[in-house]
Amino acid sequence: MTQQPVRFGLIGTGRIGQVHAATIAALPGATLSWIADPFIEGAKGVAARFGGTVTDNPEELIASGEIDAVLIASPTPTHVDLIAAAVRAGIPVLCEKPIDLDIERVNALRPLVAESGVPVALGFNRRFDPAFASARARVAAGEIGELEQLTIISRDPAAPPADYVKISGGIFRDMTIHDFDMARFFLDDIISVSATGTQTFDDGAREHGDFDTAVTTLRAASGAIVTIINSRHSAVGYDQRIEAFGAKGSLQVANAPTSLVSLSTADAVEAKPPYETFFLERYAEAYAEELREFVKLVRGEASTSPTFEDGRAALVLADAAQRSATEGVAVSVAL
Amino acid sequence: MTQQPVRFGLIGTGRIGQVHAATIAALPGATLSWIADPFIEGAKGVAARFGGTVTDNPEELIASGEIDAVLIASPTPTHVDLIAAAVRAGIPVLCEKPIDLDIERVNALRPLVAESGVPVALGFNRRFDPAFASARARVAAGEIGELEQLTIISRDPAAPPADYVKISGGIFRDMTIHDFDMARFFLDDIISVSATGTQTFDDGAREHGDFDTAVTTLRAASGAIVTIINSRHSAVGYDQRIEAFGAKGSLQVANAPTSLVSLSTADAVEAKPPYETFFLERYAEAYAEELREFVKLVRGEASTSPTFEDGRAALVLADAAQRSATEGVAVSVAL
Amino acid sequence: MTQQPVRFGLIGTGRIGQVHAATIAALPGATLSWIADPFIEGAKGVAARFGGTVTDNPEELIASGEIDAVLIASPTPTHVDLIAAAVRAGIPVLCEKPIDLDIERVNALRPLVAESGVPVALGFNRRFDPAFASARARVAAGEIGELEQLTIISRDPAAPPADYVKISGGIFRDMTIHDFDMARFFLDDIISVSATGTQTFDDGAREHGDFDTAVTTLRAASGAIVTIINSRHSAVGYDQRIEAFGAKGSLQVANAPTSLVSLSTADAVEAKPPYETFFLERYAEAYAEELREFVKLVRGEASTSPTFEDGRAALVLADAAQRSATEGVAVSVAL
Amino acid sequence: MTQQPVRFGLIGTGRIGQVHAATIAALPGATLSWIADPFIEGAKGVAARFGGTVTDNPEELIASGEIDAVLIASPTPTHVDLIAAAVRAGIPVLCEKPIDLDIERVNALRPLVAESGVPVALGFNRRFDPAFASARARVAAGEIGELEQLTIISRDPAAPPADYVKISGGIFRDMTIHDFDMARFFLDDIISVSATGTQTFDDGAREHGDFDTAVTTLRAASGAIVTIINSRHSAVGYDQRIEAFGAKGSLQVANAPTSLVSLSTADAVEAKPPYETFFLERYAEAYAEELREFVKLVRGEASTSPTFEDGRAALVLADAAQRSATEGVAVSVAL
Repeated sequence: MTQQPVRFGLIGTGRIGQVHAATIAALPGATLSWIADPFIEGAKGVAARFGGTVTDNPEELIASGEIDAVLIASPTPTHVDLIAAAVRAGIPVLCEKPIDLDIERVNALRPLVAESGVPVALGFNRRFDPAFASARARVAAGEIGELEQLTIISRDPAAPPADYVKISGGIFRDMTIHDFDMARFFLDDIISVSATGTQTFDDGAREHGDFDTAVTTLRAASGAIVTIINSRHSAVGYDQRIEAFGAKGSLQVANAPTSLVSLSTADAVEAKPPYETFFLERYAEAYAEELREFVKLVRGEASTSPTFEDGRAALVLADAAQRSATEGVAVSVAL
Repeated sequence: MTQQPVRFGLIGTGRIGQVHAATIAALPGATLSWIADPFIEGAKGVAARFGGTVTDNPEELIASGEIDAVLIASPTPTHVDLIAAAVRAGIPVLCEKPIDLDIERVNALRPLVAESGVPVALGFNRRFDPAFASARARVAAGEIGELEQLTIISRDPAAPPADYVKISGGIFRDMTIHDFDMARFFLDDIISVSATGTQTFDDGAREHGDFDTAVTTLRAASGAIVTIINSRHSAVGYDQRIEAFGAKGSLQVANAPTSLVSLSTADAVEAKPPYETFFLERYAEAYAEELREFVKLVRGEASTSPTFEDGRAALVLADAAQRSATEGVAVSVAL
Repeated sequence: MTQQPVRFGLIGTGRIGQVHAATIAALPGATLSWIADPFIEGAKGVAARFGGTVTDNPEELIASGEIDAVLIASPTPTHVDLIAAAVRAGIPVLCEKPIDLDIERVNALRPLVAESGVPVALGFNRRFDPAFASARARVAAGEIGELEQLTIISRDPAAPPADYVKISGGIFRDMTIHDFDMARFFLDDIISVSATGTQTFDDGAREHGDFDTAVTTLRAASGAIVTIINSRHSAVGYDQRIEAFGAKGSLQVANAPTSLVSLSTADAVEAKPPYETFFLERYAEAYAEELREFVKLVRGEASTSPTFEDGRAALVLADAAQRSATEGVAVSVAL
Repeated sequence: MTQQPVRFGLIGTGRIGQVHAATIAALPGATLSWIADPFIEGAKGVAARFGGTVTDNPEELIASGEIDAVLIASPTPTHVDLIAAAVRAGIPVLCEKPIDLDIERVNALRPLVAESGVPVALGFNRRFDPAFASARARVAAGEIGELEQLTIISRDPAAPPADYVKISGGIFRDMTIHDFDMARFFLDDIISVSATGTQTFDDGAREHGDFDTAVTTLRAASGAIVTIINSRHSAVGYDQRIEAFGAKGSLQVANAPTSLVSLSTADAVEAKPPYETFFLERYAEAYAEELREFVKLVRGEASTSPTFEDGRAALVLADAAQRSATEGVAVSVAL
């Protein structure tokens, strides 16, 4: 089967944009055709490594007629307009999360996406992690019976700079949003959100009225309860665990080891090196799988997943969590 | 050092009363002197195994002049009056949890206990579990830095009979109360409670308006957050885990294995037998240590722990959780 | 069922004798009646704690007419004569391993034991360890198919004093003998022995021509191979592991943890405290089970296990290993 | 630093040859220039995927003047002549193990290699496995004190076809040879070999006088003992473990998990999917690292490792093991 490679236009060449560029370049069925970044040196750097035409104007990329798909990895405030432009041009989109920090802007874009029929996929990479995907499939296969509790532990290695905290939209929209999507990956009938947030160690969070520590509880219509435990720091490395608990047992996703070696001495036994540092290491395979699935989508061989609606739902949950943590009430949601 | 053994009066000879009787009998510094139970056959059965004078009237036991300590293991509604009687008689008390299901009755007893100076210890056995005690001591020793998050997973093997659910006071007062005390064992400055409860599998819970599944979040004045995850059933056996997360790392208490043997085949590797069945097996050592410590207390060699105030605080948290789960609000507490 | 308790005569009140005394005292169906030790203060000390008549003459104990069973825990050179005396008196024996360090003396005793019909059980306590017993039962039940390889790792916490090394009979007769019996517990058709021994750290071993490090390979008639890995020291505590490998998988017995708590920090994750210190801690339950089984044997409710023949076979294997390690040849055995 | 890529000539396009071709193609500093295979369709297939000029004559490849390095992945009997030809042409060689099954042919080649000064590296891929390399480095760093025992468990997933067994040179030369090299990776002063081999399940082994199960003991001059436990089959997948035991503790290399997910039910807890299937999966990273190191060697930036002498030493140990298992004697070696 000799298909033409899917020609990608990449918008945004920051850290995650570079990851996607490398992944596209390594993917047999894909090629990097255009690269846009207002910071043109960024685009040039990526082109030097992986090829592609550069521009400082994303609209030129979209209008080039030389791309089959657009990957939006630019700053969050640009996502809504870029999605709209790509959809209007009839070009399938893979957009990094979140769609936007403002649910009103997302809602305004919603009809265009829905009516266009153009695939818009959201970059919730964790759905493509082999371990999480396996756990979800095994829950669906009934290995643990009815799902009753889902516990997500998600801790970043270190708090972001105060400048970033300021514009991040807060921990729920910036960090927990991945966990909200993971919750919906397992349970799509969330009806209520309850959150507690505190400031325990991060000056940036204190300065900008954000939380560095948070626990969120989601209730599903089925009665299932999701617990999300977040911290902005973690001494042992990126802490990414899930436990799905059901009537017949549980499935657990452990942290990713960095070595098969353990040490036993008179002080301690079975000690292992710390876990993977952060998301680029922990989710390397997920990023590759995400793009493989997206290439299939562009080719009409797969359906969109996660969708624009999934992106919107995660933001709705984040908004609800923010309100719950601030006002001390459980917040109902209709997704 | 040839001390006289501490003479115990045991009130109540149900399941937990029998455990205590056996523990007292096996303890070098203790002896079982009197046993009271309105169901006199129960008392006689215990006396036949471990010795002691029997009565169907607890007041006779308290007034016997032949006991140095009273262990109250009778039904919850009797606790308040029995504590009061023992305190008035100047006899140190170890009382099973909870003090009562009604905080008003507990509050009414409070001044008497406080002013009497008679030690009243509460039977929160888990504080004496070697693993939990070690974890707490290591947190206190600074091994993980400032404690920021405490996660307690506590699932009973199977839901109790509907008849018991009816009089239990609800999951928070009946089951989570142990976890509230455990939370306070690590963090004594809880200021707010938020809980979510659902009915997912147990007809008894549905019938009597109780929850079979619950998640409770406690906020400490320090900013630390406690998460308590409960279920009334657990296919793998009694599920009793704790993770203490701090600035420098975490301490985890795993479930108690029932065997050192694991099986690896083409189907699955490193598979172990299910965990300990329930509390009598899991906390056998804790019950023994609890009594050893109580004997020291009676002898004036230790201070009271956990105290009547600890018992009251756990009930205050349970009441707050019940209200939070019912009304959908975070509830402030002043302990 | 009100049976008379089995009256024990205990010969020898050293470390292991005291363990047995305490176990007998705690066993519902057993009582300690006589205690013999030429070092009479030892016998008196035990009697003070657990009761019993004392003597400095074991023959008096055997002739007392007041014992139903004799437990021989005296020094190894006394075992053969004491077994003979007990057997002649028709009293069932539980004798600590080894029967003797000299196979000729064991062989000389063999006909008497065989012809007497008096039960003589050997104190290979590890057969009664719940984990090893479970692993063996599961092998027998076919969980791993045909047993092809058995790997026994057995390392003592620290080398014994040089004085003890001198009279120990060497590492194979003194330490590996337990592993030889464990090998035969799983595979009773051993036909050949090959051993390698070295001196790597212990001055006592060097001084007295013994080994501190040894690996022994046993070949069974079935083709199964046993590997025994020994060291006289182990920094992590008593190292006692087994892996049974078969056509369908493997069963592994892990070391006994001393805590359920693990620590994770930036230095290392999932680190646990060292293992149980030595045999008294690791095999506490095995010693109790050994006596429970022996009581059954005395009552005619169980068959002898392990037998005098098992004790002899282990010594034959030890002799073969000693010769193999010294001469560099595989040594055939006929058990 | 813009270096010219190292131009590889690949001889042999069987399974392992294809792995190397893919690795070379993916390596930034390397390119696949020539491919030789008498089975020319094999060479063409590789060239179609990764580029390169094809020939059915390895000598043409060596004489092409267009290669900087030769990678020999052809059948074992061709290795000696191909190494000789490459060395005479002054081209650095990476040759798959073993050099040859006949130590005489290896010895005959030895002077040429030694005097030429041309780097000849042997393809003992496991030295480049991150886990084994880390364990060895940590032993060298003193984390466990003096190394006293090394235990290597190495079991293939399934016995090879009887036809292969016939020409394999026997389990020690074909399979254990990797473990002999691993032993020498940790301990380079082996002086004696003792081996036991049996036929327990494989008809091919029985038919051709080979073993399917083997245990080998190596003694080092230091007194350290290596134990190698082999089986030609393993139900749980490729079984590749190492334990380095020293005076201060031990380092253990566990099997490579295929998933982070574990399942707990009423039947068994913490059960994981089987391990990596076989060497291509388990050692994928090792093969890549091996080539990266070899590229450095070709560029003069690294020294040869493992060397021709390492390859020869492993064969000497294999020959000694074969003799030991056959004759029942420990065999001294001078490496």
